[in-house]
Amino acid sequence: MNLILLFKDDFIGSNGRVRLEGRRHEHVRNVHRAFVGDELCVGLCDEKIGTGKIVSLDNDALEMDVTFSRDAPKALAVTLVLALPRPNMCKRILACASSMGVKRIILFHSSRVEKSFWRSPVLKEECIKNQLILGLEQARDTILPQVQLRPAFKPFVEDELPAIAENTLKLVAHPESSESCPNGVDQPLTLVIGPEGGFISYEIESLAALGFTPVHLGERILRVESVVPALLSRLL
Amino acid sequence: MNLILLFKDDFIGSNGRVRLEGRRHEHVRNVHRAFVGDELCVGLCDEKIGTGKIVSLDNDALEMDVTFSRDAPKALAVTLVLALPRPNMCKRILACASSMGVKRIILFHSSRVEKSFWRSPVLKEECIKNQLILGLEQARDTILPQVQLRPAFKPFVEDELPAIAENTLKLVAHPESSESCPNGVDQPLTLVIGPEGGFISYEIESLAALGFTPVHLGERILRVESVVPALLSRLL
Repeated sequence: MNLILLFKDDFIGSNGRVRLEGRRHEHVRNVHRAFVGDELCVGLCDEKIGTGKIVSLDNDALEMDVTFSRDAPKALAVTLVLALPRPNMCKRILACASSMGVKRIILFHSSRVEKSFWRSPVLKEECIKNQLILGLEQARDTILPQVQLRPAFKPFVEDELPAIAENTLKLVAHPESSESCPNGVDQPLTLVIGPEGGFISYEIESLAALGFTPVHLGERILRVESVVPALLSRLL
Repeated sequence: MNLILLFKDDFIGSNGRVRLEGRRHEHVRNVHRAFVGDELCVGLCDEKIGTGKIVSLDNDALEMDVTFSRDAPKALAVTLVLALPRPNMCKRILACASSMGVKRIILFHSSRVEKSFWRSPVLKEECIKNQLILGLEQARDTILPQVQLRPAFKPFVEDELPAIAENTLKLVAHPESSESCPNGVDQPLTLVIGPEGGFISYEIESLAALGFTPVHLGERILRVESVVPALLSRLL
């Protein structure tokens, strides 16, 4: 936790004092091993970053006086469109994408996604939000990404994706493609990543028909949780 | 498992027939859902890649006739020198680095590595090997990486690292550095990555004294398990 993410209801009174119990309080006590008087990096969700000075800290709670001084780091100019990964991997990928500065993530269905994945508790709004928050705390960011779920391939790709990808560079990661993934692009990007086992031909053709270029990262086939940071870091 | 990694003792007789029980047999039955007559991608550890044609498959075992035809994908020209991550993360990072084509990994101690991590069963030779194999199976590779453990910082950095890094580009990932990580290098690389919480000043100075340039990946501080694929993909 390189930044303690605060929410409006953490504030007590109107003078910039916050009171934290639970996970954040325990982290400051047990991992930061902080004392009264110490200053910690804090950020207000969807707002600025600043400093919190600890004014009290005991077994039950932590109180800090906070001031905000600077903007969150720049977002990545990418919409990440990801075939729903298996639940445990999904959690880690959401935290990873959030930490890397992705602000729009769409999880969609594709033929090789197991239907049962869509019923996983990992996709509950609160669970998704928790993973995104872990990513922001890690990366010292405050801007919560949006995550959208699209459990049907065809209506999503045909009816929604064209508008989402308009005026962006359109790439789809596809290990069998002949084109190598570019290294550094300086324009907004829509990046589609398939499931373990890859897209079926119909899906790749549908994406190609919308202008998505299939690109590969070499001969090796990587797990989705490696592909996401590998592609984001290489492209952006 | 995009490739079934075989070992010399899987062979029965001298005519290219292998017999598999356990994890690989179950994977072929339950995930590949293969039948007698199907052909699967196989590779012999530290040797070539080819095809295995299933000749029998029942509850107990699988037998295949295998032939080898092509070389493993090219290795990455990098030595990955990584402060020992926490055990669960360490497992995933070993599999990830193996899948990306790293062939030499050195896990070393640094001030902010918890000493207890060195006693984790994850570091047993067999456990490390299992993770490396998962990476090879994922990436369709056969060349098992070497992993070395160096539980003391100073003797490793002073006595061994200079020779390891000789005639390579020397980079150390350090979020506080002023220099941005380059995008694409075309020479052998020695890449040092610190622990969660980063290096202490003495450590960064020791590395700088050996010619390691500290580089950052932007304002964001990423988890080690995101940093490894992010840096490898960006640099190589």
